[in-house]
Amino acid sequence: MTRLFNDPSDFPEEARLGLVAAHRDKLMAVSGGVVRSTRSKPGSVAVVIGGGSGHYPAFAGLVGQGLAHGAVMGNLFTSPSAQQVYSVAKAADNGGGVLLTFGNYAGDVLHFGQVRERLIAEGIPCEIVTITDDVASASLDEFGKRRGIAGDLTVFKTAAAAAESGASLDEVVAVAKEVNRRTRSFGVAFDGCTLPGAEDALFHVPAGKMAIGLGIHGEPGISEQDVPTADDLAEMLVKRLLEEVPEGVELKGARVVPVLNGLGTVKYEELFVVYRRVDELLREAGVEIVEPDVGELVTSLDMAGVSLTLFWLDDEMERLWKAPADTPAYRKGSMAPAEALDPAEMEGATAPEIPPASEDSKQLAGGAVAALEALAAIIDDKAEELGRIDAVAGDGDHGIGMQRGSKACLEAAREALDGGAGAETVLRWAAERWADKAGGTSGAIWGVILTSIGEALGDEQPLAAERLASGVSAASDNVMSFGKAKPGDKTLVDVLVPFAETLSEAVASGQGVVEAWVQASEKAQQAAQDTANLLPRMGRARPLAEKSLGTPDAGAMSLAMITSALVPVLERCE
Amino acid sequence: MTRLFNDPSDFPEEARLGLVAAHRDKLMAVSGGVVRSTRSKPGSVAVVIGGGSGHYPAFAGLVGQGLAHGAVMGNLFTSPSAQQVYSVAKAADNGGGVLLTFGNYAGDVLHFGQVRERLIAEGIPCEIVTITDDVASASLDEFGKRRGIAGDLTVFKTAAAAAESGASLDEVVAVAKEVNRRTRSFGVAFDGCTLPGAEDALFHVPAGKMAIGLGIHGEPGISEQDVPTADDLAEMLVKRLLEEVPEGVELKGARVVPVLNGLGTVKYEELFVVYRRVDELLREAGVEIVEPDVGELVTSLDMAGVSLTLFWLDDEMERLWKAPADTPAYRKGSMAPAEALDPAEMEGATAPEIPPASEDSKQLAGGAVAALEALAAIIDDKAEELGRIDAVAGDGDHGIGMQRGSKACLEAAREALDGGAGAETVLRWAAERWADKAGGTSGAIWGVILTSIGEALGDEQPLAAERLASGVSAASDNVMSFGKAKPGDKTLVDVLVPFAETLSEAVASGQGVVEAWVQASEKAQQAAQDTANLLPRMGRARPLAEKSLGTPDAGAMSLAMITSALVPVLERCE
Repeated sequence: MTRLFNDPSDFPEEARLGLVAAHRDKLMAVSGGVVRSTRSKPGSVAVVIGGGSGHYPAFAGLVGQGLAHGAVMGNLFTSPSAQQVYSVAKAADNGGGVLLTFGNYAGDVLHFGQVRERLIAEGIPCEIVTITDDVASASLDEFGKRRGIAGDLTVFKTAAAAAESGASLDEVVAVAKEVNRRTRSFGVAFDGCTLPGAEDALFHVPAGKMAIGLGIHGEPGISEQDVPTADDLAEMLVKRLLEEVPEGVELKGARVVPVLNGLGTVKYEELFVVYRRVDELLREAGVEIVEPDVGELVTSLDMAGVSLTLFWLDDEMERLWKAPADTPAYRKGSMAPAEALDPAEMEGATAPEIPPASEDSKQLAGGAVAALEALAAIIDDKAEELGRIDAVAGDGDHGIGMQRGSKACLEAAREALDGGAGAETVLRWAAERWADKAGGTSGAIWGVILTSIGEALGDEQPLAAERLASGVSAASDNVMSFGKAKPGDKTLVDVLVPFAETLSEAVASGQGVVEAWVQASEKAQQAAQDTANLLPRMGRARPLAEKSLGTPDAGAMSLAMITSALVPVLERCE
Repeated sequence: MTRLFNDPSDFPEEARLGLVAAHRDKLMAVSGGVVRSTRSKPGSVAVVIGGGSGHYPAFAGLVGQGLAHGAVMGNLFTSPSAQQVYSVAKAADNGGGVLLTFGNYAGDVLHFGQVRERLIAEGIPCEIVTITDDVASASLDEFGKRRGIAGDLTVFKTAAAAAESGASLDEVVAVAKEVNRRTRSFGVAFDGCTLPGAEDALFHVPAGKMAIGLGIHGEPGISEQDVPTADDLAEMLVKRLLEEVPEGVELKGARVVPVLNGLGTVKYEELFVVYRRVDELLREAGVEIVEPDVGELVTSLDMAGVSLTLFWLDDEMERLWKAPADTPAYRKGSMAPAEALDPAEMEGATAPEIPPASEDSKQLAGGAVAALEALAAIIDDKAEELGRIDAVAGDGDHGIGMQRGSKACLEAAREALDGGAGAETVLRWAAERWADKAGGTSGAIWGVILTSIGEALGDEQPLAAERLASGVSAASDNVMSFGKAKPGDKTLVDVLVPFAETLSEAVASGQGVVEAWVQASEKAQQAAQDTANLLPRMGRARPLAEKSLGTPDAGAMSLAMITSALVPVLERCE
């Protein structure tokens, strides 16, 4: 179990700071993750990796010369927000474009995908390669639906080596895709890991049993059997992977990299006992083994499990796999040290600029800060209640997450206001900080809401009911598009949609800001209570307990509370 | 828990083979452990490290360029035999003398100490530096009695870097001693590890509690308290270590290497959370941090625990700490690859020669092989019974250990006989193979017995009752000296001493070999049964259960069985 932490909600951030403190020669903390603290070749492709935290060395331990340029670090087992991805990608960019590469999980696909669009819009070439090595997660026919597990490493390593050698973005993408095509993993689990502060593990496997193909966050596997001998396990893993020699590879005489990966508490000696037999079996099958890795490479906190990855080489891949690398957790060959970056230089590169704003908009920006103060105050007041509501069906951290996010967003808004920002910029800074500091889905969603409203308000105009209403409508549309949730899914969307619709209708019928807002807000209260009677339509990562029926959704509740709390602010602004 | 193994008794050996299979570019298996598979500088000091297995990366994962030249690998948590130490030291020797360095545990001190004497007798300069970094294991006044834990790393690393840079044995020893004087560790444990095949952990710490200063094999600690926050733990560890800044070091402005070590299931993210605060506290204390290590460096299978080591530098030590290294589990800086050794070359260097022997002794050697056949047969026959006896007070592996050892020793004896060896050489080969393959105390003791008898018989003379009796007497003396056991301690000594005395007396009174042996053997049966009524006098690593009273000692029983089984062989020889 995980025993050492302070406030559990600070765990990922404190781990990130400790990692950087231990590796200042290689890593630099940036908003959302880490980047190399050494200078990369100007014009080279930046390889940015990432995902949820809790998988060390993946992902931040794989940043350094010869490997990744940056790693985005979400909360534990939670996709990073788009803002986090964006921040790390911007800091890692060397002027040669960005490859975003990560294991194939829905949240990551969504958030990295949004950033790709944003970077391209800003003129930074960006491509995505998702990793799909886990043979247990879908059939070969549905190769693209497979999850990414320890095979992440082979794609990261080769793509980064290609980038290091000066390949173009298209070439790096081609390498990453082809390596992913030639990489297969198969894993088993003996027990789940425990999140800091949790009373029990994320999942369990019955004592004496082994779950075959179980995902690293407890995603369903294929079957269960008794724990076999080390040799029998080696045979099972090798046999399954040899059934899927990639097209175009001849088994006899093939050159293959085996990666035997421990998930956390299957220890080194056990891995070596299993590897001994893996090595024999592969040789018996007539393949030649190239620079294997045996150890803890992609973990899940203290999960007990092991996976075998086979990476089928061609000549170029072999050269890329063997190329030197020097990161906190992965070193290979001999690498001349790189020049250390001046952190100040990095700060300059990533510090956002404040665009010019009209006096009207600066005044409106003051109102926006007042609104965010009211928002933070109501959340602070209701955090415990929101936590209790969330604990019925979720993990109970909605209140804490909202509290952290709204507090951070307020600070950012004040900084922007002090810097002379208009309403759009104040809300954009607020949105980015919220998504960054709160993490998780609610952080990302509030980032979308504030950004959408800010864009409608602009940095030039005074407050107008039409622009506010259209901003809220845009927020409603963008949140649905972002979160793939629809009304009736028992999420915040169930409140946001009627709120936005009522606000627009009231404004269209000629009502003023306050009057329209009050009407919409009353609708929001009603809608939030209605979620108590809804069955969720969409699949969620966590199973929704039966007892959650009858309890309103915490995200819906907090939105409704916020809309009410803003009424007095709007009254003052008008 | 440890889940992946085949036959649990094969676990350490299979782990060793897997480790070498995964790291053929760096490691080569030799009898008793591993050495570098690359060429070291001729004439440089060889740094040989080791101890029990189960502590990976310690010790075999720390062998490679810039670090150790060889690692001796005992059974799990069991000192390697002198024969294992000797074999690795011989294979690692580059012609510049050998430093044997290891954590301060009684068994290791004994066995490495024996090898030092043997190497010096053979003209190979050899020195020993024991590591005593654990502040919880004895007071500062008794610095030399402290255990070695993760501080092993700082001594190994610096001593090896000195050796790599061409320092003499005396200089390397001086570095190792001074680094040990400047290294302090303090650790805590949350739970013990489980040996492969065992039903429960070696020890437990109550749930929610933390044992302060508990040894890595469950040796007693200082006290127990509730598990603290990560920050409080960091403060506790740093505070205790800052109480013992080594003499001659000024705290303000001191340069220090922190090593935050996880024992197995305290995972990386937790270590980084703790390290974050360690880093802050050390900076607040005014020390400058140099190249820290945070990770799993000296483990205990899946034990849950963590230790902090502080290594207080001077200029030379800083240079040695920062020097490059490239081993399976520890890499630093940029190291040009070394020339691979030809394994055949290594085999030639370690294959023992067979000295010339008389025809008489060759005939006697045939008798010795027949005796070892009888010995192996009776042990094979009685292994289960011996296991049952041993299980009452011990771990039940006496029968299996004796079986493995006697089988291996018979093979070696036959090889020597086929090579034209006399009696002494046959028994020496048999002794070395037994100690090497069986491991543990019984393996080492049977090695001493066979070697002692062999030396008395020589490679020139025919069988004579006097030489046989004096050989058995020498065996009796050497076993007591080796094992520090006395008659009445409820060990094999309780049988060996009266057997040897009776044999000598009978021979002195003019009886022939067979007659004397039969008389001595009867005495041995009686003495073995007598151990059932003895309370053990000596301290043992494992607590002797109350219920063991009334059961004879397994080692004593097997010796008594063997003396009987040899009667028919002696009758045939006469």
